[in-house]
Amino acid sequence: MNKPILPVSPSRGPSDHEVRAQIVDAAMEYFSRYGYEKTTVSDLAKEIGFSKAYIYKFFDSKQAIGEVICANRLAAMIAAASESVADAHSATEKFRRMFKALLASGNQLFFQDRKLYDIAAVAAAAPWPSVKGYEEQIRQLLAEIVRLGRETGEFERKTPLDEAVNAIFLVMKPYFNPLLLQHNLDSAEEATAQLTSLVLRSLAP
Amino acid sequence: MNKPILPVSPSRGPSDHEVRAQIVDAAMEYFSRYGYEKTTVSDLAKEIGFSKAYIYKFFDSKQAIGEVICANRLAAMIAAASESVADAHSATEKFRRMFKALLASGNQLFFQDRKLYDIAAVAAAAPWPSVKGYEEQIRQLLAEIVRLGRETGEFERKTPLDEAVNAIFLVMKPYFNPLLLQHNLDSAEEATAQLTSLVLRSLAP
Repeated sequence: MNKPILPVSPSRGPSDHEVRAQIVDAAMEYFSRYGYEKTTVSDLAKEIGFSKAYIYKFFDSKQAIGEVICANRLAAMIAAASESVADAHSATEKFRRMFKALLASGNQLFFQDRKLYDIAAVAAAAPWPSVKGYEEQIRQLLAEIVRLGRETGEFERKTPLDEAVNAIFLVMKPYFNPLLLQHNLDSAEEATAQLTSLVLRSLAP
Repeated sequence: MNKPILPVSPSRGPSDHEVRAQIVDAAMEYFSRYGYEKTTVSDLAKEIGFSKAYIYKFFDSKQAIGEVICANRLAAMIAAASESVADAHSATEKFRRMFKALLASGNQLFFQDRKLYDIAAVAAAAPWPSVKGYEEQIRQLLAEIVRLGRETGEFERKTPLDEAVNAIFLVMKPYFNPLLLQHNLDSAEEATAQLTSLVLRSLAP
C-alpha cells in the first residue's frame, strides 16, 4: 500500500468520507490478497498505517468494512443487470438478458475476483443486509419485467404477480446468490439457458 | 456397540455379506454420533472390535463405507418418492407428489439424522457415485412423469423431452440435493409449492 499515512486526529485532514473510502480501498486489496476470513482488523490497521482504534472510529467491525465492499460489488452487479435490460424491446428479451447478466457477474466474481467472491459467500451465508438488499433489487427488477410482459400481452396474467415473481426468483437464485453459485457452476450457462426457456414457457399466456 | 466381536479369520464364521453389513451398521451408528468427517477407520475398528486390516479386507476406505450408507439412504429416498407417485391418477398429481416426497425425505435427513445428512452433503459435494445414481433416478422418474403427461395431453409436447426434463430437474435440484438443501431450508415448503406451480404452468399445453 503506497497511500499516505493519515494523522490520527487531523485538524484539517481528509473528510470522514475520504477516510472511510481509504479504509475500504485498502481492505479490498488486502482481502483480495489474503482472504476475508483470515484477515483481522489489526492486520488491516498495520497495512494502512492506522491505529486499530482509529479504524474502529469509522467501522464497528471487520464485517462492517466487508459489508461496504460487498454492497459496492453487488450494486455494480445490479447496475450491470439493469443496464443490460434497459434497451431490450420486449419483456421476454429483458428477462433473458437479466438472467444472463446476473450469471455473467457471478462468474466474473467467482473466477476473476475469487477472494471477493469469498466475502460475498460469507455475506450470503449470514445473510448480511447488503445481500438482502441485492436480492430485493433483483426481485424488483424481475417484478418490473413481469409487469411489463403482462401489459404487452407477452405473459399470462392469471397467476398472482407476487407468486409468479417469487417463483422465478427462486428458479434463478442458485445462479445469482454467491453462496449457491459455487455449487452450480457446472454447465451453468446451459443450465440458465434451459431455465430461461422453462420460465418463459411458464409465463406464456 | 453390543454386537459380538467376530474372530479375525473365522473358519466357519459369518459370510462376507454379513461382515460387510455389520461394519456398515456399526459405521452408521458411529458416524451418527461423531460425524463422518471426524471418524477414522481406526476409530471404527476399535469400536467394532475388528482390526483395521480386517475392515480393509471388506472396504477400501472410509469413503467406501460412507458410500454404502449414503447409497442405502438415497435408495430409500427414491423408493419413498416412487411410492408416493405410484397411485396418483394424473401426471400433474404425480409431479406434485414427487417434489413433495423428495423435500420431505431431505428434511427428515437434515433435521432428524443430521450426522447422516453430513455424509450425504460430503457425498454430494464430491459427488460420489451414489449421489450421481440418485440424481439419475430422479431424472428418470421425472422423465416418466413428463412422458405420461404428454401422452395424456396434460403437458405440452413442443419442447424436446430431454430439455424439458433437465430444466425441471434443475428447478428441483436445490431441494433434493443434500449439499444444496441446507442453503434452501428457509420456507422450503412454500418455495417448492410455488416452484411446483411454476413448473406445471411451464408444462401446460
